[in-house]
Amino acid sequence: MPTNHQIQLAARPVGEPKPSDFRLVETEAPTPGPGQVLLKTLWLSLDPYMRGRMSDAKSYAKSLEPGDVIVGGTVNEVVASNNPKFAAGDVVLGYEGWQSYSLSDGTGLRKLDPARAPIQTALGVLGMPGMTAYTGLLNIGQPKAGETVVVAAASGAVGSIVGQIARIKGARAVGIAGGADKCRYIVDELGFDAAVDHRDPDLRRKLAEACPDGIDVYFENVGGAVWDAVFPRLNNFARIPLCGLIAHYNDTETPKGPDRLPGFMRQALTKRLALRGFIVSDFASDGPAFERDVSQWIREGKIKHREDIVEGLDKAPEAFIGLLKGANLGKLLVKVA
Amino acid sequence: MPTNHQIQLAARPVGEPKPSDFRLVETEAPTPGPGQVLLKTLWLSLDPYMRGRMSDAKSYAKSLEPGDVIVGGTVNEVVASNNPKFAAGDVVLGYEGWQSYSLSDGTGLRKLDPARAPIQTALGVLGMPGMTAYTGLLNIGQPKAGETVVVAAASGAVGSIVGQIARIKGARAVGIAGGADKCRYIVDELGFDAAVDHRDPDLRRKLAEACPDGIDVYFENVGGAVWDAVFPRLNNFARIPLCGLIAHYNDTETPKGPDRLPGFMRQALTKRLALRGFIVSDFASDGPAFERDVSQWIREGKIKHREDIVEGLDKAPEAFIGLLKGANLGKLLVKVA
Repeated sequence: MPTNHQIQLAARPVGEPKPSDFRLVETEAPTPGPGQVLLKTLWLSLDPYMRGRMSDAKSYAKSLEPGDVIVGGTVNEVVASNNPKFAAGDVVLGYEGWQSYSLSDGTGLRKLDPARAPIQTALGVLGMPGMTAYTGLLNIGQPKAGETVVVAAASGAVGSIVGQIARIKGARAVGIAGGADKCRYIVDELGFDAAVDHRDPDLRRKLAEACPDGIDVYFENVGGAVWDAVFPRLNNFARIPLCGLIAHYNDTETPKGPDRLPGFMRQALTKRLALRGFIVSDFASDGPAFERDVSQWIREGKIKHREDIVEGLDKAPEAFIGLLKGANLGKLLVKVA
Repeated sequence: MPTNHQIQLAARPVGEPKPSDFRLVETEAPTPGPGQVLLKTLWLSLDPYMRGRMSDAKSYAKSLEPGDVIVGGTVNEVVASNNPKFAAGDVVLGYEGWQSYSLSDGTGLRKLDPARAPIQTALGVLGMPGMTAYTGLLNIGQPKAGETVVVAAASGAVGSIVGQIARIKGARAVGIAGGADKCRYIVDELGFDAAVDHRDPDLRRKLAEACPDGIDVYFENVGGAVWDAVFPRLNNFARIPLCGLIAHYNDTETPKGPDRLPGFMRQALTKRLALRGFIVSDFASDGPAFERDVSQWIREGKIKHREDIVEGLDKAPEAFIGLLKGANLGKLLVKVA
């Protein structure tokens, strides 16, 4: 029997996760029972939302308990099957988490066609991050030609797609990213109209210069200082799809005052802002449209994407800690096997 | 010539408006020039938004300057006309402000048919407040049968209509109002399912009891402690039409910490909340549907309304100061002539 490597949550992180919050456990790979398949993990997706699962705060999904294998989207190969729907050698999209082998009764698995697209894109541009960008921007952001769309974490798996779809819809795309390399990447390679470095002490002024006509759509996945810079530049009737707050995931206490909530509400009223939180599954019925449109845009060269690949499951904790600090460029993936 | 009474802004209120912020000025009524009509004010509407006009903070409409006649919706009689579209004796809906006579070239005036409905309802249930309730609730709140709709200032011109329309749409209507009389009124006379007194020190628990299945729509026109009680009870996918923040209109400083904005954003994300600020003119195209539906609901007895009438323009400042404290019950109107 092959050895199964699992990464479990050793302790709930307090603030920024540290390596000791994770535990690598070696066991024998399990044997599939009736109706089950044995899956070998080929690719593991690392995504910011996982930080939320490690916390015990109430959210849209159940928290992990210490000792649990950490959750995550995966691309897997079927290595043994007692399920008539799957054969050894099939490649599937799953949610098997941070481990090298797992059992499944087939629920939630989706077969992938390796001839159609590189299989790991099902975790990135053609998967959850890409669909988050697509559904949030189009359903909530509703960018119109000539409008200005701002997205933070703009070189990341979601932000990079938001800006490129905004341009496809005729809007001006302005990305906020950390550091000169990322800023260059989103303008030179992805075709954003402008980039602003959130580490720049002059962030507010630079953002204002990059958005001379104000901001009509702010795709929010960051919060913190980026929000503070964006908020005063929002135009009347601006839309704010909200799908992440990575700047706050490691917060350990309520921020000090002043209390900015009443001021936010006042601006939301006088500027007639629309803010809506969402996660990708809220728009599950958009799946076919997403796959059709984004596949076509990739073929036409209108959407580019980059993968930041880490080799080996044991590197996942370090890579995940880096992700929360913006160390990656492009979709962060672990090549497990 | 008749005497014209005007109430001007004497000074921008700091915090709660006081009588000395207003000035009563007597002049001769003006004489209409070519194309103009002379209007006599019959009814003046008093509404919370006027507090915003008295401030110099940027908003969706221009601020008043000290010395300006205070703005406001009016029902007027045409007493002399040099405009072929209007004849002496016509009754019109206008925006002539806190004065007994005014000139107009006819722009923005709308003739009212006194046989159709009492003319002052064009300032209330069949006017701006009623349409604010109708458009905000239906376009943004989108209540579904069986859901719970909460509205604050529930005995007021907007809130009272919100709750009754919510019930027409099959939702449970819970009103928040100040004092036992208002709470009795909205349940016994308007047919709300429950009422909660915002002065009750046990507001949060009482609201929770009145909303055993949580809150799906919160029509926000108040802010402050009412918001604080409502927010934790919002269900996943709750909608928040935001058209007023009367609890904050007299604020003079940024509230002390902690800063609750990051916590709000986190809840907006995990609960997938939708918040949208609006004013009635954002949905101007709904005008005909509003008039058709609400007129019919009044005829069918499904919508009731009450007017709180003050006699004499000189009483307007005191009545307005009272409005911001919740002294009125129903739509506050000044009978000017």
